[in-house]
Amino acid sequence: MDTFFNPSSVAIIGATEKPGSLPGIILKNLLDMGFKGKMYPVNPKYKDVFGLKCFPSILDVPDEIALTVIAIPAPLVLDVLKQQAQKRIRHSIIISAGFREMGTEGIEMEEKIKQVAIENNIRILGPNCLGVLDNYTNFTTSFLPWERVSKPKKGALSILSQSGAFAIALLDLAAQEGLGIAKMVNYGNRIDIGESTLLPFLMDDMYTKVIAIYMESVDHGRRFIEAAKACSRKKPIVALKVGKGAAGIAAAKSHTGAIAGKYEIYKAAFLKSGIIEANGLEEFIDAVKALSMQNPPKGNRILIVTNGGGFGVIVADYCSENGLAVPTPSPQLKEKLKNKFSRFYVVNNPVDLTGSACDEDYRIALNTGMIESDEYDAAIIIPLMAPQGMTEKIVDIIVDTMKLLGKPAVICTVGGTFTMKIKQLFEDRMFPVYPSPERSARAMSMLLKRRILQTGMAHTQCGGVTS
Amino acid sequence: MDTFFNPSSVAIIGATEKPGSLPGIILKNLLDMGFKGKMYPVNPKYKDVFGLKCFPSILDVPDEIALTVIAIPAPLVLDVLKQQAQKRIRHSIIISAGFREMGTEGIEMEEKIKQVAIENNIRILGPNCLGVLDNYTNFTTSFLPWERVSKPKKGALSILSQSGAFAIALLDLAAQEGLGIAKMVNYGNRIDIGESTLLPFLMDDMYTKVIAIYMESVDHGRRFIEAAKACSRKKPIVALKVGKGAAGIAAAKSHTGAIAGKYEIYKAAFLKSGIIEANGLEEFIDAVKALSMQNPPKGNRILIVTNGGGFGVIVADYCSENGLAVPTPSPQLKEKLKNKFSRFYVVNNPVDLTGSACDEDYRIALNTGMIESDEYDAAIIIPLMAPQGMTEKIVDIIVDTMKLLGKPAVICTVGGTFTMKIKQLFEDRMFPVYPSPERSARAMSMLLKRRILQTGMAHTQCGGVTS
Repeated sequence: MDTFFNPSSVAIIGATEKPGSLPGIILKNLLDMGFKGKMYPVNPKYKDVFGLKCFPSILDVPDEIALTVIAIPAPLVLDVLKQQAQKRIRHSIIISAGFREMGTEGIEMEEKIKQVAIENNIRILGPNCLGVLDNYTNFTTSFLPWERVSKPKKGALSILSQSGAFAIALLDLAAQEGLGIAKMVNYGNRIDIGESTLLPFLMDDMYTKVIAIYMESVDHGRRFIEAAKACSRKKPIVALKVGKGAAGIAAAKSHTGAIAGKYEIYKAAFLKSGIIEANGLEEFIDAVKALSMQNPPKGNRILIVTNGGGFGVIVADYCSENGLAVPTPSPQLKEKLKNKFSRFYVVNNPVDLTGSACDEDYRIALNTGMIESDEYDAAIIIPLMAPQGMTEKIVDIIVDTMKLLGKPAVICTVGGTFTMKIKQLFEDRMFPVYPSPERSARAMSMLLKRRILQTGMAHTQCGGVTS
Repeated sequence: MDTFFNPSSVAIIGATEKPGSLPGIILKNLLDMGFKGKMYPVNPKYKDVFGLKCFPSILDVPDEIALTVIAIPAPLVLDVLKQQAQKRIRHSIIISAGFREMGTEGIEMEEKIKQVAIENNIRILGPNCLGVLDNYTNFTTSFLPWERVSKPKKGALSILSQSGAFAIALLDLAAQEGLGIAKMVNYGNRIDIGESTLLPFLMDDMYTKVIAIYMESVDHGRRFIEAAKACSRKKPIVALKVGKGAAGIAAAKSHTGAIAGKYEIYKAAFLKSGIIEANGLEEFIDAVKALSMQNPPKGNRILIVTNGGGFGVIVADYCSENGLAVPTPSPQLKEKLKNKFSRFYVVNNPVDLTGSACDEDYRIALNTGMIESDEYDAAIIIPLMAPQGMTEKIVDIIVDTMKLLGKPAVICTVGGTFTMKIKQLFEDRMFPVYPSPERSARAMSMLLKRRILQTGMAHTQCGGVTS
């Protein structure tokens, strides 16, 4: 499997310098990323491409080739695969579209390719896909120009996606959200390699700490559950299942030719295999961000600290809706907090530091509320940056305090340019920031779900005082 | 009521040039906004403030005063109000905190103020509030520095908010979302003027086209319903009710001293008075953005057009979940579309223009799908900007086509810097853009809700073919 992410040598079929050609862009992207393996452009029309010696066919390449990247028109793919069989090249990423998703004729071509692959022991990723991006080996088969799609930084998240557009949008969003990426794999029509093969590989991948799966259908039901079960014991897996209702199932069928099947069956399978299911794209991104950046809380008792009372109220509402408790501080703790604060501050849960708050107040609230008592397992912190007492220092204060406490936190803050700057500072230090109270509460509930899956503890037994 | 938004003359009690002082910042903000009414700083310590003549007390001001702005410590407010009564000033915005929300002592002070106001026929906004922002008269009592909170452009949305932090965050978000604002009112403890007084005023305000209400509790149940009913006949009202569950209700009580009451009662009241209820901050913003920018569709039949198949599938899922139909094109329409497109494109609903799409394809899909047939009432359009065939021209193409069609559309697009630029171009032209498929579907369903409320048509009768 490693060959798909770090091939010692790769042949790019149809490589050219002509702008707009897929094999050409792929080769250019590989060069731009600084991939260190051997690269062989293959195209009878050229002697060299982007400064690399170009070969008329794979058979003319004198060295061994570990992987071919095929991004030429569908009807020409079969011949390349036959040549490749002759040269005993065991791995192929087939980017080309025009197969199963195009109806009868396409299905026939796809079946022929499958047969040649099986007979010759060739493992295939695709067709109708973007292939892979490995942020550590710098190998990619993406044919999208980097000036359009931001390249995310190195990190702990790996993405498995049946949809190419979705995979790309996730990369772009990840870059925007300060979320680091390890690997991305898009397998499109998935005639061979799919989730069931990739999960065991990612389970042992040292760079991958969290796995995100976009799924219209699954490759092999039972194998998938087994693979996911084993993998989720080690690493959190978040899935977004699309094609749920009649309209979505029909749309999925035209999209990847996938039979989406009954949604209830997927729901049950996710539960069985320890997969956290997200509802929609935002919850998907929010969950993987929280899980990539913070540890799951030990229980469900949440302390809310804010300088915007209304936001505290909304977070409290959405905590309740999502299985998080918002317990009132004990009389002793209330007393302690009251002694430390101006009488204007509302000492309760939420702790409301009001519009008069300055950033140091957050340190006091979190230290007193969480260290000096064992009443809370995690914090949702809502620093609104409009009041003048709030400065950039809030980031160090919250990050340092929570790290000392050893308890997880998520941040919610809402606003324009200055707020966006604060968001980035928090996320550089691995504290996830959400732009609405409801999303911060849901992200925290995703962290708790991970804890529940890890420990097998039931929701009601996770140490929380229900408020 | 007009005096609160466009006073012919205003006295700022306690005005000073000292940095950090609320009355000082308010006066400075007024000057910065370019407010044209007469302004009288009142403070015994100074001869002039920011170049304006300053008076020792209101009684020393030789001219008539229409409105006082009071942002001094709570215990000093009553005396100012008594002086004001002597001078027959009939309007006050009391910014000061430290009343009902602080417990017994505060409640007593608040009651005394209320009494003086009633006896002297003084209308009061506040206390414990930010007051108002009028984007057309340039009058504001906001004490937040504009370098922290972006000032939104002039527009059609007016905001009523019990929470100050929330009102400010909404202004900031509005600026970010390209959403224009008419008026913002934050009434805090609301001893006099609240929703029931403001709704009839906004109903007749020529600048206000859409009203957003953040609500922890309501001022007068029955009067509110009557006012909202009358107002929502003319203009859409979107409400965010917070303090729903036990934790949220408790939080609301500490926040504004509000008794949030049973959520079910609010839900019923919203329904009765034609208010569209939003679930969470994002849905709130998404709904007012859609309603500010687009007209409600005539029915629920949605055409989805995209170049990212996976996104089409998710939108289809969320359409179904939100009462929108995604009907398959008729055989005749399919034939027409097929004749116009490459065989790679998936002609169905969603229309999937795939990664090979160029921006002109969107014009063809929308024109053929929506003009040449009467099969759809509105469109959700998902242009993903990663492929090279997609350029900035997409904005003109979609906007011009939909305007010719005379049917509403919302846009979903996901990505980084280049996508953000496209978003802004769309929103400058009043086409709302959402960063996730689920939010675009929900925003369209909010537009449909408005149509249903306007026409009284039941969901199942709104002309849609259920798919």
